[in-house]
Amino acid sequence: MPSPTTAPTVLSYAYFGPEGTFSEAALRTVVPDAVALAQSSVDATIDAVRTGAVDIGCVPIENSVEGGVPATLDGLAVGDPLVVVAEVVIPVTFVLAARPGVRLADVTRVSTHSHAYAQVRRWLHASLPGVAYVPATSTAASAQALAGEQAGGEPAGFEGAICAPFAAARFGLDVLAEQIEDRAGAQTRFVLLARPGSAATPPPTGADKTSLVVFLREERPGALVEALEQFVTRGINLTRIESRPSGDALGRYCFSIDCDGHVADARVGEALMGLHRVCERVRFVGSYPRADAGHTILGSGPTEQAFVDAQQWLDRIRGGGAV
Amino acid sequence: MPSPTTAPTVLSYAYFGPEGTFSEAALRTVVPDAVALAQSSVDATIDAVRTGAVDIGCVPIENSVEGGVPATLDGLAVGDPLVVVAEVVIPVTFVLAARPGVRLADVTRVSTHSHAYAQVRRWLHASLPGVAYVPATSTAASAQALAGEQAGGEPAGFEGAICAPFAAARFGLDVLAEQIEDRAGAQTRFVLLARPGSAATPPPTGADKTSLVVFLREERPGALVEALEQFVTRGINLTRIESRPSGDALGRYCFSIDCDGHVADARVGEALMGLHRVCERVRFVGSYPRADAGHTILGSGPTEQAFVDAQQWLDRIRGGGAV
Amino acid sequence: MPSPTTAPTVLSYAYFGPEGTFSEAALRTVVPDAVALAQSSVDATIDAVRTGAVDIGCVPIENSVEGGVPATLDGLAVGDPLVVVAEVVIPVTFVLAARPGVRLADVTRVSTHSHAYAQVRRWLHASLPGVAYVPATSTAASAQALAGEQAGGEPAGFEGAICAPFAAARFGLDVLAEQIEDRAGAQTRFVLLARPGSAATPPPTGADKTSLVVFLREERPGALVEALEQFVTRGINLTRIESRPSGDALGRYCFSIDCDGHVADARVGEALMGLHRVCERVRFVGSYPRADAGHTILGSGPTEQAFVDAQQWLDRIRGGGAV
Amino acid sequence: MPSPTTAPTVLSYAYFGPEGTFSEAALRTVVPDAVALAQSSVDATIDAVRTGAVDIGCVPIENSVEGGVPATLDGLAVGDPLVVVAEVVIPVTFVLAARPGVRLADVTRVSTHSHAYAQVRRWLHASLPGVAYVPATSTAASAQALAGEQAGGEPAGFEGAICAPFAAARFGLDVLAEQIEDRAGAQTRFVLLARPGSAATPPPTGADKTSLVVFLREERPGALVEALEQFVTRGINLTRIESRPSGDALGRYCFSIDCDGHVADARVGEALMGLHRVCERVRFVGSYPRADAGHTILGSGPTEQAFVDAQQWLDRIRGGGAV
Repeated sequence: MPSPTTAPTVLSYAYFGPEGTFSEAALRTVVPDAVALAQSSVDATIDAVRTGAVDIGCVPIENSVEGGVPATLDGLAVGDPLVVVAEVVIPVTFVLAARPGVRLADVTRVSTHSHAYAQVRRWLHASLPGVAYVPATSTAASAQALAGEQAGGEPAGFEGAICAPFAAARFGLDVLAEQIEDRAGAQTRFVLLARPGSAATPPPTGADKTSLVVFLREERPGALVEALEQFVTRGINLTRIESRPSGDALGRYCFSIDCDGHVADARVGEALMGLHRVCERVRFVGSYPRADAGHTILGSGPTEQAFVDAQQWLDRIRGGGAV
Repeated sequence: MPSPTTAPTVLSYAYFGPEGTFSEAALRTVVPDAVALAQSSVDATIDAVRTGAVDIGCVPIENSVEGGVPATLDGLAVGDPLVVVAEVVIPVTFVLAARPGVRLADVTRVSTHSHAYAQVRRWLHASLPGVAYVPATSTAASAQALAGEQAGGEPAGFEGAICAPFAAARFGLDVLAEQIEDRAGAQTRFVLLARPGSAATPPPTGADKTSLVVFLREERPGALVEALEQFVTRGINLTRIESRPSGDALGRYCFSIDCDGHVADARVGEALMGLHRVCERVRFVGSYPRADAGHTILGSGPTEQAFVDAQQWLDRIRGGGAV
Repeated sequence: MPSPTTAPTVLSYAYFGPEGTFSEAALRTVVPDAVALAQSSVDATIDAVRTGAVDIGCVPIENSVEGGVPATLDGLAVGDPLVVVAEVVIPVTFVLAARPGVRLADVTRVSTHSHAYAQVRRWLHASLPGVAYVPATSTAASAQALAGEQAGGEPAGFEGAICAPFAAARFGLDVLAEQIEDRAGAQTRFVLLARPGSAATPPPTGADKTSLVVFLREERPGALVEALEQFVTRGINLTRIESRPSGDALGRYCFSIDCDGHVADARVGEALMGLHRVCERVRFVGSYPRADAGHTILGSGPTEQAFVDAQQWLDRIRGGGAV
Repeated sequence: MPSPTTAPTVLSYAYFGPEGTFSEAALRTVVPDAVALAQSSVDATIDAVRTGAVDIGCVPIENSVEGGVPATLDGLAVGDPLVVVAEVVIPVTFVLAARPGVRLADVTRVSTHSHAYAQVRRWLHASLPGVAYVPATSTAASAQALAGEQAGGEPAGFEGAICAPFAAARFGLDVLAEQIEDRAGAQTRFVLLARPGSAATPPPTGADKTSLVVFLREERPGALVEALEQFVTRGINLTRIESRPSGDALGRYCFSIDCDGHVADARVGEALMGLHRVCERVRFVGSYPRADAGHTILGSGPTEQAFVDAQQWLDRIRGGGAV
């Protein structure tokens, strides 16, 4: 009988559904067989974590073509704090799927999520000129609707679903065309979110990333520069910066920022303290291993060892020792 | 008989349709009675200007709640150059509209554009718990679909349309609830676009704005700061900064920037030259009067007169005169 | 009988002599009756501290008219480390002194230290046109030479000594003119130096100053700015900055810097660590109470409390707590 | 008979004398045989130019060991404007000279200018321990005094003169020791000054230097950085920066600055305008060929061509052309 103290914690999961979304695919790369609940929206997925309904939620945060996912960025910026505990990058490729027997020439209306639509516009224009676009709440929803019609449910209202290959497979659809994305090599980045209390921040691995939301103190020419200088002067590379409206008025923003390094690193800790001092508010949104497991690219700034040396030097000075 | 040379040019217009959109409303504040073509998308509106089908196109660029409009930002960043010649800010307020006779309790499905949906989520959750959301290509499209059903066309697939008040009026719908937006005071900013050759840049008015797209030379800690310093050191206020993926890979961005001032101003001209020198590429996207006609808020930097004085001083020095 | 452990330490002193110099006057404001050895030069005074011949040395470091005193600045920049433990600011006023019976019209040659000479040039030009200048190693030396001549020693080689009022009194000379300095209100700042091991750094008082010598890593446009940014970003005011040649070649410098605050302050400690990281070398030259006992003038930067708050916030984040 | 209009202008010269100084040697490298008046001080030399008594004055401005020459720096910072039209760098080497027949062992007192004394201290300490120092107004003056004594004039009051080799030769003294300077390779930089109206600024050569005096607007942490940023953002290298007290009070400074480039260069002109805008006052002190005729070392900033390109790009934009 296993000891209670060594029993592995079974975590519960949610993702931005329905079944067959890229979000589910991203989550499956981390926990292939876990029980995971499909949620109807990014907001609902985030809420499921906040309320404690699940331990971990998986949502998209950034796409290499369309940019940041507003619902995720805003969900992390306001409300009870959440932290990112892992990131997953998924290559994005789309197929045009249809009910068995439907041919390409039969497709006059296609449906998919607006982000996916944006990524196949040119292909559609060239291959299906004049095709109508029916918005869907997700790429998987369009596939699911065709499957429902196939099963005798109500008409989907379109013939073609633009979705992930595995969604076509899961819902028993034919693939009329594959790799239809306008830019090969597109990627979407997903994050796994947890409550700060429920899961420890992953320890430093040497190739980490830290996420923040920064609210500037005042609207003036130098406020953003003053904040970014906190990274520059410490040689910390920014890997993402997204402005997001604060919602108060046009022209008021907060900034969602990812930087290289872990909150436990001296340089990152010092930069965070610097931001805390010069900004209206800073929200820490987690430190976690980089998906690419790459080496942290330092700027021309000092090395981590230089930070350690500087602290030791200061300690000696303060102790009255050699200078 | 009027002389041909003095005959006013009749300009042609397009907007992000269909009829009844906020984009049309924005355009009408500038040219109330002009002939204007509704386009099916932001892309199509921009293309209509680029190809010369029309002279001016009106598209949304920024919303105080949802942030930048990707299609517009990206449309200005790549392709043949276009310039903004005017901006219009429209207060955003939504109604829940339905076919005559339908009551609030009958509404189980609502449709609207995803941006509008994001702005009424809380009201829907409180007033119509459990209501289903049907995405639409625009707020007006949802109203139009109900009008079509009312006229004997195909079923809309939903009972409630979330749209602008004037769209409800135009399509003969009942208003079940008004001012249903979660945050009062939301605004959307629209821009009127033209080809650089077809329309002169509006002359300086003393309360102008300049739009740019900036591509950084390298990905390193200081590159963004170095670019922004070009504004700070000249006391120029940024009114908007949006990062947009360059589409090449995750983590590659360009920045869409608005600043106070006109390209004819010494300070702005100098900042643009500075950006041109330190950035990979800078795209000028127009100087135009600010919609709020407000006074330009200078930073702690020098006044415009100080720029003039400095130039005169330099001229004296270079001429070998008094120093 | 006093306990050995409470017996006050009797410190030994040296100053830049000879007797009667401003340096002695400065030292006497701190320890009026201490035994103190006159040294023949700034170098000799500094060496007396370095070798342990005395505990404390008093030398001039800066004059409000002539600027920094090179021998002191260079003595602190190279060689075994020394630290400033106190500063004294003395108003500088000069008299023209002569042997009893000598009248102003009799003075054809005056002698004093070149720094003093620089401060009375205009008065001399107006009151004693055509007077010859005989350089002296100190202001007191010129007075002492006249006293020696009066006592039957060798001829001084001049009739007038430009010195401090108390030097005239000490050496029994007549005062022919007083307050002859060209600019009223001139001041000289003196520092009391000690070996780092021999005397504890004075504890923070809330109105302190910290002295440093900074050697830049490379000669390039931004190196000095990068160093100074370490102060600016932490809201630390510089009260003095002097470039000094490193002696290697024309155009190679180190910088002697005083800033507000104490090495025990969070902001100063962090700035020192920042300098340590970005500079070739940083020499800490002491933290000590400001002579004016004034309030530290903070820049627009964060308060000391903001530094404490930021550290606590970081500790909470690193502990996995609220963010 | 030469036409009056083509007759070469014969310029008149002055230098910081007496005869035999390094200043004269520096001037002779430019105009070997010109008539040139020895002046009694740096101030007198500068005044001779200001009043029009001569066209050009030659004074030392910087020594690689002792640093800036206060009288020159301050003379350029205040009073009627003067400009540097040329610089000369002279290697500094000293000899110990004495009257014929005097041996090294006979020397108990040496005389020279305090700057020279500072550069031979160690040699004196090692070779003539206990020797007394008699200050002189210049290195040449000490040689001249020995020559006067030799010629039957009054006693010099010392046996050894520390002076330039050519001063020993000119005054008929024996050289007891040569190359006695503590640091081999020391150099002094001299400048040739003119009134702005009397001599045209030398045209750009591609290897030029520009001199300035900068008075900061306010005493605050960022004022100096803000000024220096004007150089950094334009990739201009600073070759010298000297703080000088403004004379008002301790802690008030102006800065004497040399930078690479010519006032006619776009980058330098723009930096000067930037300084003019952010500083209390900027004094242009001349653009002139670099003595080392070396290549201008640009920082990581933009090239001169980039400045030209940026101006052309701006002109196109302002003209409404391609962007």
